[in-house]
Amino acid sequence: MSEAAKTLDGWYVLHDFRTVDWTTWKMLSSEERQEAIHEFLSLVEKWNKTQAEKKGSHALYTVVGQKADFMMMLLRPTMEELNELETEFNKTKFAEFTMPAHSYVSVVELSNYLPSDQDPYQSPEILARLYPILPKAKYVCFYPMDKRRQGEDNWYMLPMEDRRSMMRSHGMIGRQYAGKVKQIISGSVGFDDYEWGVTLFSDDVLQFKKLVYEMRFDEVSARYGEFGSFFVGNLLEEDKVSHFLHVN
Amino acid sequence: MSEAAKTLDGWYVLHDFRTVDWTTWKMLSSEERQEAIHEFLSLVEKWNKTQAEKKGSHALYTVVGQKADFMMMLLRPTMEELNELETEFNKTKFAEFTMPAHSYVSVVELSNYLPSDQDPYQSPEILARLYPILPKAKYVCFYPMDKRRQGEDNWYMLPMEDRRSMMRSHGMIGRQYAGKVKQIISGSVGFDDYEWGVTLFSDDVLQFKKLVYEMRFDEVSARYGEFGSFFVGNLLEEDKVSHFLHVN
Amino acid sequence: MSEAAKTLDGWYVLHDFRTVDWTTWKMLSSEERQEAIHEFLSLVEKWNKTQAEKKGSHALYTVVGQKADFMMMLLRPTMEELNELETEFNKTKFAEFTMPAHSYVSVVELSNYLPSDQDPYQSPEILARLYPILPKAKYVCFYPMDKRRQGEDNWYMLPMEDRRSMMRSHGMIGRQYAGKVKQIISGSVGFDDYEWGVTLFSDDVLQFKKLVYEMRFDEVSARYGEFGSFFVGNLLEEDKVSHFLHVN
Amino acid sequence: MSEAAKTLDGWYVLHDFRTVDWTTWKMLSSEERQEAIHEFLSLVEKWNKTQAEKKGSHALYTVVGQKADFMMMLLRPTMEELNELETEFNKTKFAEFTMPAHSYVSVVELSNYLPSDQDPYQSPEILARLYPILPKAKYVCFYPMDKRRQGEDNWYMLPMEDRRSMMRSHGMIGRQYAGKVKQIISGSVGFDDYEWGVTLFSDDVLQFKKLVYEMRFDEVSARYGEFGSFFVGNLLEEDKVSHFLHVN
Amino acid sequence: MSEAAKTLDGWYVLHDFRTVDWTTWKMLSSEERQEAIHEFLSLVEKWNKTQAEKKGSHALYTVVGQKADFMMMLLRPTMEELNELETEFNKTKFAEFTMPAHSYVSVVELSNYLPSDQDPYQSPEILARLYPILPKAKYVCFYPMDKRRQGEDNWYMLPMEDRRSMMRSHGMIGRQYAGKVKQIISGSVGFDDYEWGVTLFSDDVLQFKKLVYEMRFDEVSARYGEFGSFFVGNLLEEDKVSHFLHVN
Repeated sequence: MSEAAKTLDGWYVLHDFRTVDWTTWKMLSSEERQEAIHEFLSLVEKWNKTQAEKKGSHALYTVVGQKADFMMMLLRPTMEELNELETEFNKTKFAEFTMPAHSYVSVVELSNYLPSDQDPYQSPEILARLYPILPKAKYVCFYPMDKRRQGEDNWYMLPMEDRRSMMRSHGMIGRQYAGKVKQIISGSVGFDDYEWGVTLFSDDVLQFKKLVYEMRFDEVSARYGEFGSFFVGNLLEEDKVSHFLHVN
Repeated sequence: MSEAAKTLDGWYVLHDFRTVDWTTWKMLSSEERQEAIHEFLSLVEKWNKTQAEKKGSHALYTVVGQKADFMMMLLRPTMEELNELETEFNKTKFAEFTMPAHSYVSVVELSNYLPSDQDPYQSPEILARLYPILPKAKYVCFYPMDKRRQGEDNWYMLPMEDRRSMMRSHGMIGRQYAGKVKQIISGSVGFDDYEWGVTLFSDDVLQFKKLVYEMRFDEVSARYGEFGSFFVGNLLEEDKVSHFLHVN
Repeated sequence: MSEAAKTLDGWYVLHDFRTVDWTTWKMLSSEERQEAIHEFLSLVEKWNKTQAEKKGSHALYTVVGQKADFMMMLLRPTMEELNELETEFNKTKFAEFTMPAHSYVSVVELSNYLPSDQDPYQSPEILARLYPILPKAKYVCFYPMDKRRQGEDNWYMLPMEDRRSMMRSHGMIGRQYAGKVKQIISGSVGFDDYEWGVTLFSDDVLQFKKLVYEMRFDEVSARYGEFGSFFVGNLLEEDKVSHFLHVN
Repeated sequence: MSEAAKTLDGWYVLHDFRTVDWTTWKMLSSEERQEAIHEFLSLVEKWNKTQAEKKGSHALYTVVGQKADFMMMLLRPTMEELNELETEFNKTKFAEFTMPAHSYVSVVELSNYLPSDQDPYQSPEILARLYPILPKAKYVCFYPMDKRRQGEDNWYMLPMEDRRSMMRSHGMIGRQYAGKVKQIISGSVGFDDYEWGVTLFSDDVLQFKKLVYEMRFDEVSARYGEFGSFFVGNLLEEDKVSHFLHVN
Repeated sequence: MSEAAKTLDGWYVLHDFRTVDWTTWKMLSSEERQEAIHEFLSLVEKWNKTQAEKKGSHALYTVVGQKADFMMMLLRPTMEELNELETEFNKTKFAEFTMPAHSYVSVVELSNYLPSDQDPYQSPEILARLYPILPKAKYVCFYPMDKRRQGEDNWYMLPMEDRRSMMRSHGMIGRQYAGKVKQIISGSVGFDDYEWGVTLFSDDVLQFKKLVYEMRFDEVSARYGEFGSFFVGNLLEEDKVSHFLHVN
């Protein structure tokens, strides 16, 4: 039996992708639309307050292409809170004019392939990574992934030492992008269909492509990575929401 | 020809996932919604009675993410009863405002890889596992799975002795979670698209991730496990149903 | 080039799975629903007459879980008749309140891996199997399957003798279930997406699981079987149709 | 680098599968339905004229099972004409009561694995195969296929000589069905999701099963064939269209 | 660790496939339809202006078969602009009568497997390829693709030198089609579900088939290519839009 790496776990995460039903949205009167936008922004205001109190975080991005129109990324200390936020959104007026497009449930995770000679929960740097306040980066990239278990390429049959050394070299690529790409890894084993979710933030959207492409040549991805759908989006700041949803 | 393990079989199980159509639900008057909720709770009351008489069991959970809004897990002595419960729900007022999201048909099962020197149906512990009263745990996790039959990794071509020894080590991981995670295995060969359904209950949602992740490094899962979609949910107690479905 | 086994072919088969749209069904007046049920039962009456004349057969089952609400299994001497039955149903009032859920097109088939020293069409036993009157068994199980052609596990590259000997041992498992499970194999090469459809009938639903599970350890299934979706259902007798469709 | 076989290319082909929305179709008045049928038959009349002028061909079949209600197979000298026919149909009254079910875009193709010592476009037999007038056969069978590129079974890595000799033996099976099955191969590399479409015509529907099954044991199919969905249908003659679409 | 090839990146690309809802489109009055067409053409006029200023490019094609009715291909310097164009279209009157059919997000890319002894951004030829003005070719072909990572066929585990030499031979096939097919490669790693998008333009639609088929025998495609859906279309010139959308 191969040994599982220990993980450190932080906030629970819901990626919630929605598509706007523009046709019915336009059927509303201008006042009704304003009310719906106002109600939605009040919700976001509550999320802001939670974030200011460091009891969670969130991000709002429009999504490029037909996969979705926008994404809400929500981080909270419990699964119950995620469920409540989701249901609260579903009950808003605005939600009547959106359709679910995709979602992903996970928990912020640090893979502990490091030597365990210290208590990681004492480290402020580690706590900041487990309970992150999401940056207002211009671009976001999200995708889920698995480690492959296929014939000769079976990650879960490898000795711990091999996995650790591959993950170290893998992490080194990520570190070259420090300052350019912020990366949040969340674990979803037992929660959703892939084993991890990866959320990248950057002010230069090309860095997503460079990072993911470079990593693909690394043995961890080349032999052992299985990837789901990729989503890319632009920051939707609150003062742009009205513009985004404005119709004549 | 390889020898099939004998199984012990208990109650039939229907996992029934539903999504609420909030938009049409809100179109109802407050009274109509109350009536619909009342009718649904009367159904649950009947299920409670059945459970009190140990003629079945059930559980109600909200589901995190867009895969579904809630799950009804129903256990009964016959397939006919499952079908009737399902049809009875379908005919309720509330059902008009829900959409089918997913379902799974199986039967509670114990794999009998143990030496057969005693009649298992004489054991109260085994009977309790075949006809379980579901716990009111805070969280649920459900996923279906297959044993792989792919090239060199073909579970069904292995000698009984190898399967037995692997299952024993696999079971040992599960036992480490005793008291933390309650696990119900149900067989679905001939009934649904995967070979087994796994339902986990816990008061600590992270234990699902830890358990499934640790097992993934075990040879049974690493080489021979194929997994379907994962669903995770929060307990929906009856006195919370009205709140869950309340809209202004 | 490997030699294809000869097959004997009987009636054409349509498995037709439907889901009831309960919401719109309830919108009808009680009289309208009665008329629709009456019209549907008249159709079934015509099928009964055809069956009495041994010009075809049929079965009606409710399906457990969300895959469908009920299944009509129809056997006829020609493809045209299947198509006409299907279209005739589609034009009924009741059909307006059902949605197609799944279908499968095939022809009752006997694999002739036996020595060919006699004319099989002279055998009353074989004729009864090619033109079967479906039993009123309490339960049905349906699934489609392929023989695998993957790397080392390529059924179609095996010599006839190997296939014959594996099929013989495979058939022996089936024979152990004689009297408990009635099995109808239908060929769908060139007609639908898998190569065969398997329909099982039994008065003990657990026998489906036992049979399919035991066969999975047989080399024919373990190495060479690829399975599609499984459907399981309860007999829907004509005098239960009104009850099944009754709403307040 | 392996050498590609040259192909000869004839008419472009659109297989257009549609499902009738019987519920809304029945809402029309009898006159409106007649008008819609009349308009559709006028379209078919135009296609007949094109066919009489040998500027194209077409076929109309009802489809067995829920995959579609009917198929229009259209052959024309250019992609633009296919697109126009499709759009013209989409704009008819009848089309309002149909839903797209499936389509396939290809071009009639002859694989030229033969020695090239003569100009094939001089051969009347070859021209007749590239620009075929579709037969009024009682049954049709359509499926798309790929040549496999998987591990050891990679068609595109084989030397030309091996492919040629396998295709020759493959073609010999087809030739045994001469007079019983007419076979049209169309290439779809660069046009649709598989590499070829196969359309079979016969007055004996069982011949489809026999032919495809026998070929499956041939190495070209056994090791190198990947198949998509299979559709089977009955000839829908123009004077049967009104009957097919008639509702009370 | 294998070395990633450097890429040169140009304009961002959105392929936006739409299906017309002809039934509701016909419900509009002739004036309303004209207004909607006029508004859409005004949008195209704005795109023309952007193209004239070399700040982007676009193309409009009808699509053959049911996958979509038309495709808008949009190239812009930023992801934000793509998102805005998409949202602007979504808010038009015409968009109310279209349904999203497929989309693809990428960036024009040149694979730099060439020796790097010069600054490629100084080359006018390379700039013209990174910021292309799309040709008014009669036909378009679009498909996404991956490089395979499967068992022995793992592109990302190959040494740079092997990949370079295979890409060189691959490029040679492409060059034989110079003047016949214009090829735009766009990278989508981190942006969409495949690694690349390929868009081909030609005045002879058969060249798409010839090119893709010939390349399939090249080792890069034969062993390492994984292909998504193929779309083929006819040029939709602006003065044909009214005709395309005209209904009686």
